Amino acid sequence: MAWKDPDIEGVRALLAAGATPPGGPEPTLEERRMRIDAFAEMVPLPEGVTRATGEIGGRACERLEPADAVEGRRLLYLHGGAYVIGSARSHRPLAAQLAAAARAVAVVPDYRLGPENRFPAAVEDAVAAYAELLDETDASRIVVAGDSAGGGLSLALALALKARGLPQPAGYYVISPWADLTQSSDTYRTKAATDPMIQRDAVAGSAADYLGGGDARDPLASPVFGDFDGVAPILIQVGSEETLLGDSLKVADVAGQARVQVQLEIWPEMIHVFQAFFFQCAAARRAIAAAGAWMEARLSAATS
Amino acid sequence: MAWKDPDIEGVRALLAAGATPPGGPEPTLEERRMRIDAFAEMVPLPEGVTRATGEIGGRACERLEPADAVEGRRLLYLHGGAYVIGSARSHRPLAAQLAAAARAVAVVPDYRLGPENRFPAAVEDAVAAYAELLDETDASRIVVAGDSAGGGLSLALALALKARGLPQPAGYYVISPWADLTQSSDTYRTKAATDPMIQRDAVAGSAADYLGGGDARDPLASPVFGDFDGVAPILIQVGSEETLLGDSLKVADVAGQARVQVQLEIWPEMIHVFQAFFFQCAAARRAIAAAGAWMEARLSAATS
Repeated sequence: MAWKDPDIEGVRALLAAGATPPGGPEPTLEERRMRIDAFAEMVPLPEGVTRATGEIGGRACERLEPADAVEGRRLLYLHGGAYVIGSARSHRPLAAQLAAAARAVAVVPDYRLGPENRFPAAVEDAVAAYAELLDETDASRIVVAGDSAGGGLSLALALALKARGLPQPAGYYVISPWADLTQSSDTYRTKAATDPMIQRDAVAGSAADYLGGGDARDPLASPVFGDFDGVAPILIQVGSEETLLGDSLKVADVAGQARVQVQLEIWPEMIHVFQAFFFQCAAARRAIAAAGAWMEARLSAATS
Repeated sequence: MAWKDPDIEGVRALLAAGATPPGGPEPTLEERRMRIDAFAEMVPLPEGVTRATGEIGGRACERLEPADAVEGRRLLYLHGGAYVIGSARSHRPLAAQLAAAARAVAVVPDYRLGPENRFPAAVEDAVAAYAELLDETDASRIVVAGDSAGGGLSLALALALKARGLPQPAGYYVISPWADLTQSSDTYRTKAATDPMIQRDAVAGSAADYLGGGDARDPLASPVFGDFDGVAPILIQVGSEETLLGDSLKVADVAGQARVQVQLEIWPEMIHVFQAFFFQCAAARRAIAAAGAWMEARLSAATS
């Protein structure tokens, strides 16, 4: 495939450099966790963003504060990693960019991961974090965001807030969400050849590690099976080359039919969570800027 | 159903006032054409927009020119009406709003309608109009837009331009497109109760009137069966209460997978081509403003 985007070859080359060579030993879960954390350390924080550590909802968290943050604004960021890897540390660079774009303090909890902590531990930690943010500010001043499993977790949180009678935030910004743990999307097949990161078998293994014996069709595990009526507006960004593209289409379908305001953006030639490559990819920077404008509009609408 | 939007009840009441009473005689095609044209005459043009009549691609057309139109910008507007009713006249108010929003001269052709003129007459007229616009300006300064059947026709035009080796415009803005003349969307069922305008049986009748014996799976009749690779960016706006919501989801799926830049907006509680009710519905005005910003961005990107 010849790509038109000027930067995506470089992103793919970077990914290939970090991949296990063919026939090489598969990394252990511990190695995968170390690698994703280490990768993030190579990217500096944007100017004016300061970092602090703390606790939220009973879990460790990082706080990323832009110098021009608007008083009371919070971005609850739920990191990706298939519910088994990733951390506040691994996703610090991306969360910091989004904090700057939304002029909000990002709060990134280390929610519990599988297989040590099964579903619904991650959902419970997300709810606890959100509930504690309500002590700091009003729901209308919070945006919830996340990538991949963290995007799915954001949407699970939306349903959990409904069920518990907690107020909805100003909106949800989900990046390449993994929202169907039954892996039913046809894009697992149609995009298998061009997705350098996500393949169905590996994802199914992570789902099993997260769910244990739990039901993949539980809406808090796979929000595409949930009832979104009453949920706050949702912005979805996804790349055209993703096996998970179908999950984004399903979220738009289910939430849209339930009368949620939905904006789905499909970015041509882009890959899973391409926004994380903002340091080498102009389309990633444009996507972050567009999401920033959307979050600003949601946060302004809600407080006016 | 209790609606949260402050204006949508009024829109529905207006529609109900114009509908055939239960048991009343079905209007003839001629009556339907007269009514849709007359409805539009009640809405004044926006300030600063002047109207002229002319010809484009061998068909009559209207031109709607905003006082602040940017030199060389054109909006080729393809009106709706299930390929059997509607005209440059009926859609003048909406086309004029969009011309103002894009700061472009809107050109609205009276493309040939069924059943007098079967598929692909409408597509041929759209291609001829676009080709003639290329004598006036550069493709990068044209946006193609349309609603309902005109949205489907815009997407058919996208495929026809590819096939004929003509340059793509800056973008396509499609409002509640009717893009699948096989009527396969599940939203014909899930939204039947809340859609006040479009039901499957009536639409199937119009499809037959347009297609004659033609194949509904021909991509120039039902663009969801086409190959969108290489087509310009697409903005889709659709209401959550539409039986045609599924057509918009299919367009996003097919075009997105083909690496077209797609933005799909699902507007909660809104109905088929709600933008046409801009004079009584704030959400319609917001949707037009959002589309205007998108068109401006596309037209600026292409000419820079």
